[in-house]
Amino acid sequence: LPRMQSSGSKPCPCPSFKLREVASMYFTMIAVFLVILVVALQGSAPRGSDFPYKVPLDPQGLLELSWNVSYPEQAVHFQLLIRDLRFGLLFGMSDRGEFENADLAVLWSDGHNSYFGDAWSDAQGQLHMDSQQDYQLLGARRAPEGLYLLFRRAFSTCDPKDYLIEDGTVHLIYGILEKPVHSLQAINISALHRGLQRVQLLKPNITVPELPSDMKTMEITAPNVVIPSQETTYWCYMIELPDDFPKHHIIMYEPVITAGNEALVHHMEVFQCAAEFDSFPHYNGPCNSKMKPDRLNYCRHVLAAWAMGAQAFYYPKEAGLAFGGPGSSRYLRLEIHYHNPLVFKGRHDSSGIRLYYTATLRRYDAGIMELGLVYTPVMAIPPGEDAFILTGYCTDKCSRLALPAAGIRIFASQLHTHLAGRKVVTVLSRDGRERQVVNADGHYSPHFQEIRMLKELVAVFPGDELITTCTYNTEDRSRATVGGFGILEEMCVNYVHYYPQTQLELCKSAVDPGYLHRYFNLVNRFNDEEVCTCPQVSVPQQFFSVPWNSFNRDVLKSLYGFAPISMHCNKSSAVRFPGEWEKQPLPTITERLPEPVPRCRPTPGPRPAAPVPLDLGQLRRD
Amino acid sequence: LPRMQSSGSKPCPCPSFKLREVASMYFTMIAVFLVILVVALQGSAPRGSDFPYKVPLDPQGLLELSWNVSYPEQAVHFQLLIRDLRFGLLFGMSDRGEFENADLAVLWSDGHNSYFGDAWSDAQGQLHMDSQQDYQLLGARRAPEGLYLLFRRAFSTCDPKDYLIEDGTVHLIYGILEKPVHSLQAINISALHRGLQRVQLLKPNITVPELPSDMKTMEITAPNVVIPSQETTYWCYMIELPDDFPKHHIIMYEPVITAGNEALVHHMEVFQCAAEFDSFPHYNGPCNSKMKPDRLNYCRHVLAAWAMGAQAFYYPKEAGLAFGGPGSSRYLRLEIHYHNPLVFKGRHDSSGIRLYYTATLRRYDAGIMELGLVYTPVMAIPPGEDAFILTGYCTDKCSRLALPAAGIRIFASQLHTHLAGRKVVTVLSRDGRERQVVNADGHYSPHFQEIRMLKELVAVFPGDELITTCTYNTEDRSRATVGGFGILEEMCVNYVHYYPQTQLELCKSAVDPGYLHRYFNLVNRFNDEEVCTCPQVSVPQQFFSVPWNSFNRDVLKSLYGFAPISMHCNKSSAVRFPGEWEKQPLPTITERLPEPVPRCRPTPGPRPAAPVPLDLGQLRRD
Repeated sequence: LPRMQSSGSKPCPCPSFKLREVASMYFTMIAVFLVILVVALQGSAPRGSDFPYKVPLDPQGLLELSWNVSYPEQAVHFQLLIRDLRFGLLFGMSDRGEFENADLAVLWSDGHNSYFGDAWSDAQGQLHMDSQQDYQLLGARRAPEGLYLLFRRAFSTCDPKDYLIEDGTVHLIYGILEKPVHSLQAINISALHRGLQRVQLLKPNITVPELPSDMKTMEITAPNVVIPSQETTYWCYMIELPDDFPKHHIIMYEPVITAGNEALVHHMEVFQCAAEFDSFPHYNGPCNSKMKPDRLNYCRHVLAAWAMGAQAFYYPKEAGLAFGGPGSSRYLRLEIHYHNPLVFKGRHDSSGIRLYYTATLRRYDAGIMELGLVYTPVMAIPPGEDAFILTGYCTDKCSRLALPAAGIRIFASQLHTHLAGRKVVTVLSRDGRERQVVNADGHYSPHFQEIRMLKELVAVFPGDELITTCTYNTEDRSRATVGGFGILEEMCVNYVHYYPQTQLELCKSAVDPGYLHRYFNLVNRFNDEEVCTCPQVSVPQQFFSVPWNSFNRDVLKSLYGFAPISMHCNKSSAVRFPGEWEKQPLPTITERLPEPVPRCRPTPGPRPAAPVPLDLGQLRRD
Repeated sequence: LPRMQSSGSKPCPCPSFKLREVASMYFTMIAVFLVILVVALQGSAPRGSDFPYKVPLDPQGLLELSWNVSYPEQAVHFQLLIRDLRFGLLFGMSDRGEFENADLAVLWSDGHNSYFGDAWSDAQGQLHMDSQQDYQLLGARRAPEGLYLLFRRAFSTCDPKDYLIEDGTVHLIYGILEKPVHSLQAINISALHRGLQRVQLLKPNITVPELPSDMKTMEITAPNVVIPSQETTYWCYMIELPDDFPKHHIIMYEPVITAGNEALVHHMEVFQCAAEFDSFPHYNGPCNSKMKPDRLNYCRHVLAAWAMGAQAFYYPKEAGLAFGGPGSSRYLRLEIHYHNPLVFKGRHDSSGIRLYYTATLRRYDAGIMELGLVYTPVMAIPPGEDAFILTGYCTDKCSRLALPAAGIRIFASQLHTHLAGRKVVTVLSRDGRERQVVNADGHYSPHFQEIRMLKELVAVFPGDELITTCTYNTEDRSRATVGGFGILEEMCVNYVHYYPQTQLELCKSAVDPGYLHRYFNLVNRFNDEEVCTCPQVSVPQQFFSVPWNSFNRDVLKSLYGFAPISMHCNKSSAVRFPGEWEKQPLPTITERLPEPVPRCRPTPGPRPAAPVPLDLGQLRRD
């Protein structure tokens, strides 16, 4: 590996020396300008509409983050409301919400003077000032409800210590300083009251389609539930549509959150039940209760889904989601995930989802298609892997058979894995060349599964391939993780929302079982260890008995990248399109999409970097 | 893969808007300052000692590059002498000397006005102005011998289009503009008179040791050879030391180049012959001539080596290279590589190497040790690979047996592969943790094999491991490349120069042949193709018959990363240290050296970037 010298810290000699003086003058001017700016902003109240997205950071709602995204500027503007400012706070971003190797904006006070600065934490959690200040303070304002901090951050900075803001999930972290500190370095990050919140920071910039005048609303809400005093509850509530409710199109939906419960309602989904059953029992209680009727498991067709930080969901103007009418169940299931880590007792909640629907059907019915891997144990992840990759294919053969000549348009996507999932991406490939990312989340969390609007429609035509790749971490596991439905088994799925609806409900793959059998044979023969991964036992049992040395790991990876696949090109989970779907060749990719190279723009600021002093008056001491 | 938006080009709204005005004022000031600087430098003659390193770029010597390296500034200062300026020139750097995706400084003239700018070429060879100007023009001066251009370049810039200057080989490229051009974009790079030159730009910053007063010199030079009028000649010339020449220490050597042949003498080596033969025939002629006596092949022990761009080689003050005395051959072989692409005829040459030696022996004899891979076909590279990696090990077991308790000090290194080699690196590992890079060349070329002084001595102790990794490109080959001596076979070697000399001459490895046999079995069994890679035939034959699908490639990689090794822990190429050296475990690495993150410093300059106008007067038109 080629070596690089670390940058020396000595100043440059002669010609650059004069340059430095000029630069220093310049940065002094900038600093003065910034101070004037801060003072100027003290008086101006930020308008709510400037920050359309809002999320509570902590379960008590003491910290409330609002933000907007400027794509022309490639920057996010943040407004942080601190309801009960003590001696400062940390706010920032990190790969998966950890406080080590994090990128932080820090407001701290020694009890008399307050400062704001852009900092980073090292692998031990020790704070350091960034050499370049990329959280740019734009203002601070006291209001009756608390202190508002306004700051700006470019998606990509030139500072290698900074987090790169990308599409998909961003893990926000916060920490509250409860004692005065004399310097940034004195902050002990492990002693803070702290936490994390996941959001999609880079919301797509979508024009809201026009809504019809005959639009009606229906609230699917919990009937004044008492939120259980436990950290995690999935609440299930059954709703029945009126008799003879005709076919409508859902064209929009939005969350209805009971005031005060904003930090407790983590996510909500409305499912439609299976049409083959005439009736479903009523139910109102925890989804994992022994009392819950089994039949509720047949209510799995997603009508609407919302997660914290999400706004209203709008269908594209050409399409709506069909509900009601013949061939569709009258029964709906509302599922609410309450996240109550402070185990509040006796909180009442009537949150839910408000559906906006119309009888004036739009041109197209919207549909949902499942991409990725079949739920089968042949797709497995060895234990102790930090980033093992599995890939599921929707092949050209299937899309050629199932899609209309004019193609379909994907407008939204919901990524899904179980607990080991860390990244998910679906790429569209045509004629062997990757063309477009359908949806990607490099910081995916199984605890944050939103339906996300795509930034632009993705057109998929007959013959196109949709390749879904999931990255898993099994460092904490001691045996192989196989594919399947169980919480400790894995999935790799992208539910894509598209129009016009087709018969194709499932376009997924798994490795050919015959080739997996050859792999187990090879493991038996190649390794010195006398291990029996006999074909008589089940595939999971064979995986559990593989000795996971580097060779067996590598060869499994190679197998998944080489062996032919079994395709599930299905009308429903049980009915395949006609054709030969076994031992299909893996799609070949001759041209990959280029790796995005984030272009940074250096943020001007004083060098060496210095914190910005703030006048917040005397802060409260206990 | 997570996606990033490309930077928008719209200006920022309000607060930043005022900032832009300030910035604009600032950059105007900088621009004015730079113009003053350019004018000021017109008069000052650059002194030769400011640029200690010099190399001709083209075979005619029309372009001569001198440079110095400032490690505190992390920058290179270049002085380019253009003997016969036409309408400008391109000078730059690229991965392997190609003109596509290159980083270029361009001087161009429309016949009236001249400009200097930092540019880049895209994958099609089209030139574009860099958005950031990192080749900083420091001056231009007319002199009787030609035009001197002075410019500066930081090792690492913040511009992703720029080349990162690292240790090891740098491929410099040049192109001469023979017609006026009206803009940078109008330059047709494929129509230029152009070429490449390889140099080690980042010369180590070494203090020259004190030289003894009894130092003598000996010139080993060609006897007025007529350079053959062909592109490539390896010239061999035998020299005999005086009878009873006692043991001396070579403490320094330097090139002696016949004036006018600077661009033709590519590299030179002095080899000592094997002591077991009493005499060697005299010879003066091409090394590949049928007339060359076979016995000259026993003259392979390197005494001195020089390549274009290298300066004098100094041994560390504690050590010298023994020559003369009993047990050492009196015969030396000088080998000169003439590179004569313009096929000049009748050029006479008496170049060679001047040895500086002393009878006052230094404390330590220096030694040369061979690290890397054994020359055996079991280490092979599949065809069509763009970056296949092979690794050779010097294990803890061998170093424990062969090195003195106080360890050895490596002070220089010569990397060696055959034609497919692209990168070579040796890393020192202790207790399973990588500690230090011994020598690395990420742009290694088999056509540029210098002995390089290390920036710092590397101490190696008993129990340490030295791991040498070579990267090969076989995209132009249709069958496997096996290890061996042939020019189309491969090697992976690092000759390390160290003191005190030990008995260990060779510390190299290869994969265990039994495990390779299992690999060929697996290939036969796993693949559907009926291919016979039978054990009766030779290992190269077995490799040539492997069907190179992705699985067989991947599994070979996995095999090399997993299978035990056969160690050559040898006193000479035939005599092993006592011990069991077969089926040895691969060294395990629990901690890798961190990937270096090049820290850039943004170069201030006008934005959008603009070329710098130069007053060079009227330029010559044919």
